[in-house]
This record gives sequence, structure tokens and C-alpha cells, in this order.
Amino acid sequence: MKIDEAEQAIKKILPEKRFVHSVSVSETAGRLAKKYGGNEEKARLAGMLHDIAKYFSNDELKAMILSKPGTWHDCLDYSDKLWHAPAGAIYVQEKYGIDDSDLLQAMIYHTTGRKQMTLLDKIIFLADYIEPGRDFPGVEEVRKAAEMDLDTAVLLELQKTIMHLLNQQQRVYPKTFEAYNELVNRHANK
Amino acid sequence: MKIDEAEQAIKKILPEKRFVHSVSVSETAGRLAKKYGGNEEKARLAGMLHDIAKYFSNDELKAMILSKPGTWHDCLDYSDKLWHAPAGAIYVQEKYGIDDSDLLQAMIYHTTGRKQMTLLDKIIFLADYIEPGRDFPGVEEVRKAAEMDLDTAVLLELQKTIMHLLNQQQRVYPKTFEAYNELVNRHANK
Repeated sequence: MKIDEAEQAIKKILPEKRFVHSVSVSETAGRLAKKYGGNEEKARLAGMLHDIAKYFSNDELKAMILSKPGTWHDCLDYSDKLWHAPAGAIYVQEKYGIDDSDLLQAMIYHTTGRKQMTLLDKIIFLADYIEPGRDFPGVEEVRKAAEMDLDTAVLLELQKTIMHLLNQQQRVYPKTFEAYNELVNRHANK
Repeated sequence: MKIDEAEQAIKKILPEKRFVHSVSVSETAGRLAKKYGGNEEKARLAGMLHDIAKYFSNDELKAMILSKPGTWHDCLDYSDKLWHAPAGAIYVQEKYGIDDSDLLQAMIYHTTGRKQMTLLDKIIFLADYIEPGRDFPGVEEVRKAAEMDLDTAVLLELQKTIMHLLNQQQRVYPKTFEAYNELVNRHANK
């Protein structure tokens, strides 16, 4: 799928605000891929498509997630805000025949992170958080870190994400917590 | 083992400050047990003994932990501040023949918590945090919660403990995180 086709596709599916966010994530992901030696085209495509299932109903999301075997099924036991990520990957695979597993995985884990994140996982996870349209406490700190070191920025995002959930007294998805613990460890050994 | 014997034993082993803390945890644990329908004598004894291995060397702690099979072995991959808890339980079992598994478990998990905490687990976990000698930001909030509802207070302590680790960019022991997630869930369903 070409990036222009993806843009046209999500324009039809997403509300204006989410469409603008997706284009911005796509551009940010491309920029990060260039900076950190990733595949720019794939990063832009993953960024464009990452929220494609954001406005499907919970019933649809659930059915899609359960339609494929996968280690992400456990997200159904957590906040429904997590569901669009794996469902989106399944959707683009079925609807557009995208079978690049690197791209699909980056879509699946763009909200939560996971252990052993790939370069593309990190780029999409980060681009979603720091794209220029985002405006919330702490985002500037992560933006600055992203200019210096990718892992530092991802760790900061994980830390802030978990903090936010704790402050709201919400549960933390185990893979997010595992990603945090792993990156702290790697950081300490640098 | 009688509470007076335990007090004499730790007086010989622990520095003055830690001894005073232990007596205070013992008293607080007894008070919480009375309030929440637990076994006061057992709570006082567990409180008195909980830090007995606090000043053993890391080599000693590690050897003790590895001397018994147990699901707490994974603490050796985390901060050495966690090690005295299971080691203390193994110590009192071997040295004083204490074989009450409820008491031993409460000692093992007094620093970290775990899923499916027992009443005694919760009492010792909490008493260690809120005994009158403790003075750090947020302790008063947990003290107040402990007067109202045990689970609310334990959840608050878990939340603050994880926050503190995140702020320090330290790893979180998985059982602590699991305890938090479980209690949030239970709380939401109340």
C-alpha cells in the first residue's frame, strides 16, 4: 500500500481531528526513522494507519481481536482504549493485504509498548506521543529526549504513561510495565 | 515463639533505630489486626520479626533465599532492598522453628506485596509503611485510609510505592505491580 492510498483510506474512515493527528504521526515517524536509521517509507505508512480502527465499536474491535490468535488477546481484560491497536493491524492486513509483520507489530503495540521493542515499534510509539499537535504536560520533555536518544525518549514516555495511569488509579497493562522495566535495566547498563 | 522472646532476639540483632521501628510495626500490626478482625498475637509477632534479616550481607541474603525453593527467587533479579524479606522468613523458620506459613508469607511479601494478599499480608505491609515513626510525603494519607478501609490503604501504599520507583527511574518488582492491578480491579468492582 502506498502512503497516498493510506492517507485517502483513513480520510474516509476517521473524523477530521483524528485524520490530522494520523498525518502528523506519519510525518513524525518518517522524520524519526530518518534520524535513527529506520525505513522511512514503512514508518510513514505505519504512522498513517496506526489509528485506523480507533472509531470502530467495542463489539467490532473485540470480534476482530479474537479472530486471530495472538499474545495481545490479554488486552481485552484491560481498558478498551487499548483495543483499536491490535484490531487496526488485523484490519489493514485483511482489508489491504498488508503482511509486513514489522509494520503490523508496530501498529499492535503503538499504545502499550512491549518487551524487545523493534526500531519501528519505538518510532511509532513515540511519534504517536510527540507529534506536533499533541499538547499535554510533559510532552515537551519527551520531544527533547527524542532529539537526543530514542531509548531515553521511549523510557520517558513509558514512565509518564504509567504515572498517568497510577494517578488515575487505573490498571497498567502488563506489557507496558514489562517494557518500562526492561528499558530501565538497559539504561542502567549503558 | 512468644512476642517477648522475639523482641529480645531482634534487640540483639538490629541497630537501635531499626529495633525501635520493628517494635512500632509490631504495635501497629496488632492494632490493625484488632480493627480488621485478624489474629493480634500473630500480627504483633510478624511485625516484630519482619526486618530481622535487614542487616545481613547481600551474600548471606542471597544464599538464604536460594537455600529454599520458592516463587520469590525472582526478587534476586531486582533491587537488593527486597532480599531481606524472604531471607528473614527463612531465618526465623530455621533459627526459631517458626512454621506458621501465614506468618512466614506475610514476612516474605512485606516489602513488595503480591496478588491475593492475605489479611496478615496486608496488615504487615501497611504497618511497615505507616507506623508512627515513619515520616515521608504521603504517609499521612495512607494512615488516614488505614483507619477507614484496609484495601483502600494497601492500594494507596502500592500506588505510592510504584510512583516513587518510577520517579527514581527504578524497576518495579512484578509482584508489586500485579498487587496494584488486582486491587484497582477489586476497588472498581466495589
